Amino acid sequence: MHKQLNIQVLLTGNEVMAGDTIDSNSAYMAQVLAEHGLKLSRKVTVNDDETQLLSELEHMAQTADVILMNGGLGPTVDDLTAQVLAKLSNQPLSINADAKAQLEAWCERRGQPLNEANRKQMLMPEGSSIIPNATGSAPGIDLRFRHTRIFATPGVPSEMRSMMPLILERVQSEWQLTSQTHVLRLQTFGIGESNAQQLINQSRFEWPASVDLGFRASAPQMEVKLTIQDAQFKSDQLACAEHIHDLFGDHIIGQGDTTLAQTVVQLLAEREQSITTAESCTGGMIASQITQVAGASRVFEAGFVTYSNTMKNKMINVDPALLAQHGAVSEPVVRAMAEGALDVSKADYTIAVSGIAGPDGGSPDKPVGTVWIAYGTAADLRSLKLVWPVSRQLFQTMITACALDLVRRHILGINPHCRYVEQRSSSPTSII
Amino acid sequence: MHKQLNIQVLLTGNEVMAGDTIDSNSAYMAQVLAEHGLKLSRKVTVNDDETQLLSELEHMAQTADVILMNGGLGPTVDDLTAQVLAKLSNQPLSINADAKAQLEAWCERRGQPLNEANRKQMLMPEGSSIIPNATGSAPGIDLRFRHTRIFATPGVPSEMRSMMPLILERVQSEWQLTSQTHVLRLQTFGIGESNAQQLINQSRFEWPASVDLGFRASAPQMEVKLTIQDAQFKSDQLACAEHIHDLFGDHIIGQGDTTLAQTVVQLLAEREQSITTAESCTGGMIASQITQVAGASRVFEAGFVTYSNTMKNKMINVDPALLAQHGAVSEPVVRAMAEGALDVSKADYTIAVSGIAGPDGGSPDKPVGTVWIAYGTAADLRSLKLVWPVSRQLFQTMITACALDLVRRHILGINPHCRYVEQRSSSPTSII
Repeated sequence: MHKQLNIQVLLTGNEVMAGDTIDSNSAYMAQVLAEHGLKLSRKVTVNDDETQLLSELEHMAQTADVILMNGGLGPTVDDLTAQVLAKLSNQPLSINADAKAQLEAWCERRGQPLNEANRKQMLMPEGSSIIPNATGSAPGIDLRFRHTRIFATPGVPSEMRSMMPLILERVQSEWQLTSQTHVLRLQTFGIGESNAQQLINQSRFEWPASVDLGFRASAPQMEVKLTIQDAQFKSDQLACAEHIHDLFGDHIIGQGDTTLAQTVVQLLAEREQSITTAESCTGGMIASQITQVAGASRVFEAGFVTYSNTMKNKMINVDPALLAQHGAVSEPVVRAMAEGALDVSKADYTIAVSGIAGPDGGSPDKPVGTVWIAYGTAADLRSLKLVWPVSRQLFQTMITACALDLVRRHILGINPHCRYVEQRSSSPTSII
Repeated sequence: MHKQLNIQVLLTGNEVMAGDTIDSNSAYMAQVLAEHGLKLSRKVTVNDDETQLLSELEHMAQTADVILMNGGLGPTVDDLTAQVLAKLSNQPLSINADAKAQLEAWCERRGQPLNEANRKQMLMPEGSSIIPNATGSAPGIDLRFRHTRIFATPGVPSEMRSMMPLILERVQSEWQLTSQTHVLRLQTFGIGESNAQQLINQSRFEWPASVDLGFRASAPQMEVKLTIQDAQFKSDQLACAEHIHDLFGDHIIGQGDTTLAQTVVQLLAEREQSITTAESCTGGMIASQITQVAGASRVFEAGFVTYSNTMKNKMINVDPALLAQHGAVSEPVVRAMAEGALDVSKADYTIAVSGIAGPDGGSPDKPVGTVWIAYGTAADLRSLKLVWPVSRQLFQTMITACALDLVRRHILGINPHCRYVEQRSSSPTSII
């Protein structure tokens, strides 16, 4: 039943309409709703224009049970939401006691006097109630208009987000929804959306109707989302997760929000082992991603960005004769980089990369996009070549991800001959 | 006159409605239109649902001169655009000769036979014409319905983008618009949107009506956009740019798309000088941003990610006694890091940072967000402390930007006592 609740979004803001701001608020709203079995049916965006806002609201209220309005609650003259809602409901604007209390408390916490802007934010249509704002000054507005319940939230993402739980609670209570949505998310690397869909289509597994399957690609990873609307379908969900594990195998790197760098840091921390990096073409990106993980200091002491040949020698003792004979982008050099970094840092694991990020620097023999990666331990150091001819930035991003993934596979003892190695390696047998 | 053209966008797609994809297509469309003096007046997003699409189109056509439809041109059953446009205009779907020719050529270039999916993409409402697709398989559809001209483009961003110039040309030709829009963009760092607006409001400069002012914040930089609709206003635009330069001063880092890292690389390359980095809390991010710039090898040879105390000593010779006496996050240590990196790399400039990114590791004396930065040359090495208590990732991003900006100021001989130093430094006099 509750799947049919008609929920629409009305976004207001000249910046959004001008393309100066990309709207991510409505995507967040849709995700929160989806996790509780609810769906958006329509989304309208307009400029900060009173007539247009009124006409959209009138039109929406004909079909919507719930309108989620976003933006226009700020202190400036462009912020029209309270005034438009007053006109719509034919009620005067007056100072709302709860809004006043919240704004006074907010100013007091910051040691500021109430100003004119704050006073404007206390004004609400009579008969409406506030949605408290935990992180900013402007309270949200909760208003009934005919058969529709309207929730107006601020455009600042963090403020809107902090109001969504209460809005959801009020919607669930009014329509007596008992949502038991459970979402299971798996993070994958090295498998594309269309390949993933094909693998599922070609399998003989009968997908249960109770489990909703979704993909979200956000390079370099792809998320697989399994959603059920009631706890009674938990076993279906687990069966699907198991099936996905069978199909995608070691391309699955973890659950929830896990990133490749997080996985590597966690695996190493569990083993009380450490890692070091020797980077040429990725220029510090691998070290940067590792150290973006909170607690990285448990596993990471040193990273070497050896961009020039001289520095490959000086910082991590790569033999100049090797560089002269094979060039910087070669298997002997990248292995020497890996060994040198291990030697200086005394880490357990190492990643070394040397390649041609472009746009210049390629040759017929070693075109732009060529990269040698060495990774592993002193006792088991592996190396392979990939060719990934894309833009400089995407190249750096993808090679950083591959390097981290290859280390993950090494630590876990997984076969490194995975899809991306097969597809991007001109000589897959070069894995030693 | 042409400012009043009513242009509306209709987006279709379950992924967009579910929040799995964030729509950036409509922002791109709005920007392209704005650069030619045109404005979006309304934007509606719906699920892939025939009835809903039809009703939105009917409703839109009552007010819109132009409808930009996006999505639903793919090969699957969810892709309803051609079929909906046929119903709307009450015309049968049939194979369009131009679409057929384009798809055949596309398949031939890729050495693939035409498949069923491609055949579906040849079907268009009779009376419509195609918008050629330079980068993908699906042609766009150009259709007149009553007084409205409808342009349907694919949801794949690159394909939609490649069609916009032709769409714009057809709109300009039909409504006889002669756009001569000129956009001048300035990149700034260290000044927020509200501060920027306030500076402009408080100045006594009379802003010419011919120049449109816009801001786009994309952390850590902020873009200022000055748009004119005719070349005759060029001098107004330049006067505004000059005024912005007067007001924002050295917070302006360059024109167009310039980033801080690009500016630093370019300034150094012009002077045939080089830079090195010694990073603790930023963990390689500064080196990574420098090496993301094409041609970075002209100015960058080495970066040291010295995350542990041991490695600060081993890689760049920081005296263990200094570390023991002052701690890693201290002025003497960060200066020793800067000097050590200069010494090993023989670079001209250096950046060293040591701080507490959090979430753990803070103390009452040195809370999370505290960072010491040393930068400059051997002859003129400066250092300062900032306190920037935000999330780990934002801290790393902002400190990386500050470090690059401080080097930019050093190279250009600009006073480093800028806004963010004043605001974030608990002891601004510590600049040596």
